[in-house]
Amino acid sequence: MSVKITDTSLRDAHQSLFATRMRTGDMVPILETIDNVGFHSLEMWGGATFDSCMRFLDEDPWERLRVIRKYVKNTKLQMLLRGQNIVGYKNYPDDVLEEFIKKTVANGMDIIRIFDAVNDLRNMEKAIEFTKREGAHAQGTICYTISPVHNNNVFVQFAKDLKETGCDSICVKDMAGLLSPYKGYDLVKRLKEEVGLPVQIHSHSTSGMATTTYIKSIEAGADIVDTTISPFALGTSQPPVEPVEAMLSETEKELELDGDALTEMSEYFKGMKKKYEKYSKLAFTVDTNVLNYQVPGGMISNLTSQLSDANAIEKYDEALQEIPKVREELGYPPLVTPTSQIVGSQAVLNVLTGERYKMISEEVKNYVAGYYGKPPHEIDPTLKERILQEKEEFTGRPADHLEPQLDKARNEIEQYLEQEEDVLSYCLFPNVAMEFFKKRQEGKINASEDNVEPEPEKEKAEASGNGKSGTDS
Amino acid sequence: MSVKITDTSLRDAHQSLFATRMRTGDMVPILETIDNVGFHSLEMWGGATFDSCMRFLDEDPWERLRVIRKYVKNTKLQMLLRGQNIVGYKNYPDDVLEEFIKKTVANGMDIIRIFDAVNDLRNMEKAIEFTKREGAHAQGTICYTISPVHNNNVFVQFAKDLKETGCDSICVKDMAGLLSPYKGYDLVKRLKEEVGLPVQIHSHSTSGMATTTYIKSIEAGADIVDTTISPFALGTSQPPVEPVEAMLSETEKELELDGDALTEMSEYFKGMKKKYEKYSKLAFTVDTNVLNYQVPGGMISNLTSQLSDANAIEKYDEALQEIPKVREELGYPPLVTPTSQIVGSQAVLNVLTGERYKMISEEVKNYVAGYYGKPPHEIDPTLKERILQEKEEFTGRPADHLEPQLDKARNEIEQYLEQEEDVLSYCLFPNVAMEFFKKRQEGKINASEDNVEPEPEKEKAEASGNGKSGTDS
Ligand SMILES: [Co+2]
Ligand SMILES: [Co+2]
Repeated sequence: MSVKITDTSLRDAHQSLFATRMRTGDMVPILETIDNVGFHSLEMWGGATFDSCMRFLDEDPWERLRVIRKYVKNTKLQMLLRGQNIVGYKNYPDDVLEEFIKKTVANGMDIIRIFDAVNDLRNMEKAIEFTKREGAHAQGTICYTISPVHNNNVFVQFAKDLKETGCDSICVKDMAGLLSPYKGYDLVKRLKEEVGLPVQIHSHSTSGMATTTYIKSIEAGADIVDTTISPFALGTSQPPVEPVEAMLSETEKELELDGDALTEMSEYFKGMKKKYEKYSKLAFTVDTNVLNYQVPGGMISNLTSQLSDANAIEKYDEALQEIPKVREELGYPPLVTPTSQIVGSQAVLNVLTGERYKMISEEVKNYVAGYYGKPPHEIDPTLKERILQEKEEFTGRPADHLEPQLDKARNEIEQYLEQEEDVLSYCLFPNVAMEFFKKRQEGKINASEDNVEPEPEKEKAEASGNGKSGTDS
Repeated sequence: MSVKITDTSLRDAHQSLFATRMRTGDMVPILETIDNVGFHSLEMWGGATFDSCMRFLDEDPWERLRVIRKYVKNTKLQMLLRGQNIVGYKNYPDDVLEEFIKKTVANGMDIIRIFDAVNDLRNMEKAIEFTKREGAHAQGTICYTISPVHNNNVFVQFAKDLKETGCDSICVKDMAGLLSPYKGYDLVKRLKEEVGLPVQIHSHSTSGMATTTYIKSIEAGADIVDTTISPFALGTSQPPVEPVEAMLSETEKELELDGDALTEMSEYFKGMKKKYEKYSKLAFTVDTNVLNYQVPGGMISNLTSQLSDANAIEKYDEALQEIPKVREELGYPPLVTPTSQIVGSQAVLNVLTGERYKMISEEVKNYVAGYYGKPPHEIDPTLKERILQEKEEFTGRPADHLEPQLDKARNEIEQYLEQEEDVLSYCLFPNVAMEFFKKRQEGKINASEDNVEPEPEKEKAEASGNGKSGTDS
């Protein structure tokens, strides 16, 4: 029985390596080829791409979705949805979520991968319900992490809850590349036996384990794994598809991919890598910080830039060691958007001010008060008590305290409205969207299809190595 | 039962990534730390390092061996010996081989990994005999390759022959990174069951499979695997040690390495990577050419530079496809020094002249006439017939036709001789050694211990990426 592949080249790969900067016009020329490879699905929307389109690329994210759908006729399109956070960094009211999913599916989305940073089902259940109602595939996600309160029992139970809530499949989302081959094997085996839904593994090569974890997970029965094309692979991105294909080719789980289309895709993305690598902050190597501190690659680069901004890069080691402490005090949330930012920024504050929790960020206060959902474990009592003196605790479903937002938003952007989707863009990122709308009205926005990253001005100087370097011998 | 690690940072890693340019003075400051990690052995000599020391670094390779031995008191030292080719590119007479091994062991070598490019035992048996006689560990090597005439039966039989000849252990040398996890599993299992010697796996990350192949090989019973420290890992180099350690940490095959020493080593080599990456020609990514054409990374870079020198880089694809054809016509030799150069250069000739075998290199003629040993399979009859019209076939042990060389060499360099080892350096690389001796006599050679690569003149400009790139979500 063949294993299936979700290709992440158009979303997670460039989000992980190139600051989510890939433009639609650079995707268009290769879309029909990608469509011919035979992938199960293309992850090509959601996550940070929505924000990035308007904020950095002068693009309409909805137009990107329609353009890709136009050229990708056979392969399923897939997105990453942050549960009640949609594609933003905080909870949005149900009316925005509902309309967002409606428009997303109407514009051509097939599969919606839904996660919540603290694995709180209440932050996911509406998204699952709306996705099912629109006729799309709802994939329920387990955010994988390591802590004294996380183990395979907890994850399997959560998967059962997701199935109960209506999910069509389960994704094990290992955003930091922490899932080891043997833990992965056990988890997948149990999910297959005890839950019975298709299981998809999403990992990152950050710590150097992901490719092996895929192979062991497939041995345990995983149905789909997330890879990317080799020029966009490794480092903090996904494992490359080519070796996974080669390794499985001699087993009964052989992939059914079109080799010529894959080669063409690889050649194309080599060119893209040259254009976009200027956005890369991280070396394409193994990040041992992940293994030592369980801090994912994206957090490392945020940490570095926050410390640099504060002229305090010498506190790097201290800040790195502070992250697991803050995470423990906040009840061991998995480190993924937005908890990665919440934990990381507080760790930097703790180190910069010279006194732990001398200053507490608004996000930490909201998190502790329950506005992000129920943390996996109890919050440090002293910290909690202190914060609840100024902020009332909220134990209900986080989105329940939020007022509907759509109608008011529609009124506010009336003069700029060109499509119903604009209301959603505005609800999600009011300032960024407003700037985008103004530019658009001034005719300063290009069609997505024509929006390409400029070629680098000059080729890098040739590397100077030479001599009789043989082939390892 | 714990698995053991051979660290290749001081030999294969910088040979594979940085054109064998690492200098002894850059090794010295970290040697005691490396010695404390708990590696089974350090591969730190042989291969291309001997040539490179004199040719590019103005260093005495023998002095490097003594310096490393001085600082590495506990860990075994290991070298790669090209069988009758010693550390050169052709066969040398037995008296040179015997003296070389004598001096190598006398200067502190513990383990000698012996290979022959076409797996011809006759090119290895003297090296094995001399190594045993000097009291060192003789590791017999199987050069792994894929072809219609290579399979695990062939490899297991060869391992039995190696055991018979006196080898203490078996190395599966996968110089191109072609050994897949499942083929590796089968091969190791059979070697353990049918041969019974300790089995060590040496692979390269070139195709993206090696880390997984190590894990599956260890599941099958491999005793030792070759890794390097993460900054010197991946691409055409070895897999990094850190994820291998992490993956095995939850099994009964847990590595017993000192984490602090390993972290210190990693930090140090990060700095080395910055200094040496100017010698790197290859991206740290997955080379799909290996998977498609079975052409290892080192050959790709040689191919590129030979075509560039001839102003014919547009023939790259043609040349790439020519390599497997030439290899087939030459009886499927594994592609490793020197067969990789022999096959690669002839492929370039075939493409540049516009007519296959219009010109035939001297090396191909010698290879076909039997001077490199017995090819794995019959040579193309037309080609063979043509070459044997001008060159007599030789079917004996290749070194048997060679006259002893030591005494004559000693006379020739009498006025430069400072140590007996100089005679060997001269036998191996007469021109390069002579230049080195002259410089040395003029006082222009620094002590190895002080020979460091200069720091790069300026830091690379900061990459320009920024923005709200989260941790995959
Ligand atoms: Co090697
Ligand atoms: Co991801």
